[in-house]
Amino acid sequence: MSIRNRAAIAGVGQTEFSKDSGRSTLRMALEAILEALDDAGLRPEDVDSIVKMSANDDIYEIDLLRNLNLRNLRYFNEVPHGGGAACGTIASAVAAVTSGMADVVVTFRSLNERSERRFGETTVGGGVGHWRQYYFPHGLVTPAQWVAIHGQRYLHAYGATTEDLGRVSVLLRKHAATNPHAMMYARPITLEDHQNSRWIAEPLRLLDCCLDTDGACAVIVTSAEKAKTLKGVPAYITAATQGTGSRAEMMTSYQRADLGRLEESEAAARELWRVAEMRPEDMDVIQIYDPFTPMVLLQLEAYGFAKPGGAPALFRDGSLELGGRWPMNTHGGHLGDGYLHGFSHIVEGVRQLRGTAVNQVINPKTCLVTSGVGVPTSAIVLSKEAS
Amino acid sequence: MSIRNRAAIAGVGQTEFSKDSGRSTLRMALEAILEALDDAGLRPEDVDSIVKMSANDDIYEIDLLRNLNLRNLRYFNEVPHGGGAACGTIASAVAAVTSGMADVVVTFRSLNERSERRFGETTVGGGVGHWRQYYFPHGLVTPAQWVAIHGQRYLHAYGATTEDLGRVSVLLRKHAATNPHAMMYARPITLEDHQNSRWIAEPLRLLDCCLDTDGACAVIVTSAEKAKTLKGVPAYITAATQGTGSRAEMMTSYQRADLGRLEESEAAARELWRVAEMRPEDMDVIQIYDPFTPMVLLQLEAYGFAKPGGAPALFRDGSLELGGRWPMNTHGGHLGDGYLHGFSHIVEGVRQLRGTAVNQVINPKTCLVTSGVGVPTSAIVLSKEAS
Repeated sequence: MSIRNRAAIAGVGQTEFSKDSGRSTLRMALEAILEALDDAGLRPEDVDSIVKMSANDDIYEIDLLRNLNLRNLRYFNEVPHGGGAACGTIASAVAAVTSGMADVVVTFRSLNERSERRFGETTVGGGVGHWRQYYFPHGLVTPAQWVAIHGQRYLHAYGATTEDLGRVSVLLRKHAATNPHAMMYARPITLEDHQNSRWIAEPLRLLDCCLDTDGACAVIVTSAEKAKTLKGVPAYITAATQGTGSRAEMMTSYQRADLGRLEESEAAARELWRVAEMRPEDMDVIQIYDPFTPMVLLQLEAYGFAKPGGAPALFRDGSLELGGRWPMNTHGGHLGDGYLHGFSHIVEGVRQLRGTAVNQVINPKTCLVTSGVGVPTSAIVLSKEAS
Repeated sequence: MSIRNRAAIAGVGQTEFSKDSGRSTLRMALEAILEALDDAGLRPEDVDSIVKMSANDDIYEIDLLRNLNLRNLRYFNEVPHGGGAACGTIASAVAAVTSGMADVVVTFRSLNERSERRFGETTVGGGVGHWRQYYFPHGLVTPAQWVAIHGQRYLHAYGATTEDLGRVSVLLRKHAATNPHAMMYARPITLEDHQNSRWIAEPLRLLDCCLDTDGACAVIVTSAEKAKTLKGVPAYITAATQGTGSRAEMMTSYQRADLGRLEESEAAARELWRVAEMRPEDMDVIQIYDPFTPMVLLQLEAYGFAKPGGAPALFRDGSLELGGRWPMNTHGGHLGDGYLHGFSHIVEGVRQLRGTAVNQVINPKTCLVTSGVGVPTSAIVLSKEAS
């Protein structure tokens, strides 16, 4: 039994991304879900399952049920660990539809992360993992600070520089610059801009950090069989998995052999390529979770696009540009398009395979999408054809 | 594609139930999980998935991963709505193993609900659903008060009395009285005891309410195929589903046509009997979620064991006694054994089918287990044989 290409994404929806949505996360979620259903050619009464990310919003599936006047939901659950959960909601949805326990699954993310609670602020006093008591006294109180530890180790281990981080940012802003949906539309940056931006937590500068964003995305998952009969062009889910690492904490898994690697992503990659029966070389476009620039480098290596220490070269040789071998984060990602906890990466992956992306790659047939790191993670491989 | 009998419960574990466990919920969870794994004949390194209930504990799957030294988890999620989630964790686990996304799934519940936060207290100020703002000003601030609304409606609609509620309690305490594990071991009550107990929220008296309990339970789910090869005698999962109702809120779904019915349970029942290809008449033993006595009556009717208003007669005619047609809550349930958010009902269901229960029914082949009500719910049907 394998899930390979037995489920598909049948519809996607997305609100505008902004600094101030002017409306509730529930309202935006409803807008994105209705757009995704319409995109798929489905109606609210077709929905029988909702899978969501558990952290950082206060929307219950019963709020959607009431407001969309849904019928009985027979499968619903939540995936923990913030951005690490985006593709995890797809994994749970795939389990539901391939086992026959659900027919049409709604997954979504809706955040007023700029106008309400900004995740970049200190979480002291918040309901966070108990292990943080060991780091807070040392001044490690924000995501940028937690990630900086991994970034610093990476630079040290492989002789990389902050210019290598800067090239990640320059590429993302380049793709955002030609995406009218992006918060950084028409605002490309140079490597000099990056180097001149202020320190946030060394080696991270302001332009190494993702945007604060208000917005929502929604994705509809159903069986491959059903998806073929619907209006929306399906993106087949060739593989979907979650992944964890040793001695895991949330954002502070420092009690490990190597801080310049991402064990969670390596574990997810092994399972993902096994199920997909594919290799990194088989990917035509990739959407890599990009909260801070070092995490992009680490993931490119964890998923096998480069050897340890080899990721910076991919930015120097153009491999990740639109015309390159593995066009990456073609919408501009979290640093250019907006920070929707990885959900916009899934939407962009579907659009690329459909041929409807703004920065369209020429006829891609496969796409890797990864989710948040430094926490238990998740990833999917999407395919244009279910071969 | 159907999940029918394709997954099984391969092991169960349980700590003592008490008023003061003297240790953390994490510690108890680990004890119950190790016992369940040992019961199944599995080791921690065999685990590749964890599904938990999301509310009211602070145990992350990565806490279990660290403390049990687990390998990579490839599937993990959480089911919302407290006690409504118990069988929902089994449903998610079934999706995972029947789709091939996981091999061995740990599910568990661990609570210090007596010695730490008691759920029966007011939740004002807690992180509860936004809809409660409409009920709190009217004095509806505790679970007993929320449920009393349904109880009062039921008594009015069907001419039932609080003695009918009392008979539920008497039966549960009778079964607990002969269960050495039960908090109410050797402490049966009479209907007179019930009628003399003080009002909590009319029509609920003290003896209509579940116990406050410290303790933990764990359940191991794997494929039916694998379960057959293991040490633990499998309980096949013939059906598993979740269920919701119209205009749903959490514990306060009062904006409905009939408060004397449980729409969530009716929806779960329809799906459950459809998937199981069974009817209520086919059940040999039943474990009904019993937070407060009226909710037992409403569920017996929702799942089809009686017509509307007919449940009290099942208590008068002995149908639910150990020698009756549908022996119910044979461990003593939440009012006699202890309140583990429905998880002990799953453990007892497995033991009945194995023939290892303390109050053993004669050779049962099927068992219904239901989960929390007044919230989105869930239920499973277990079978001794996978026919």
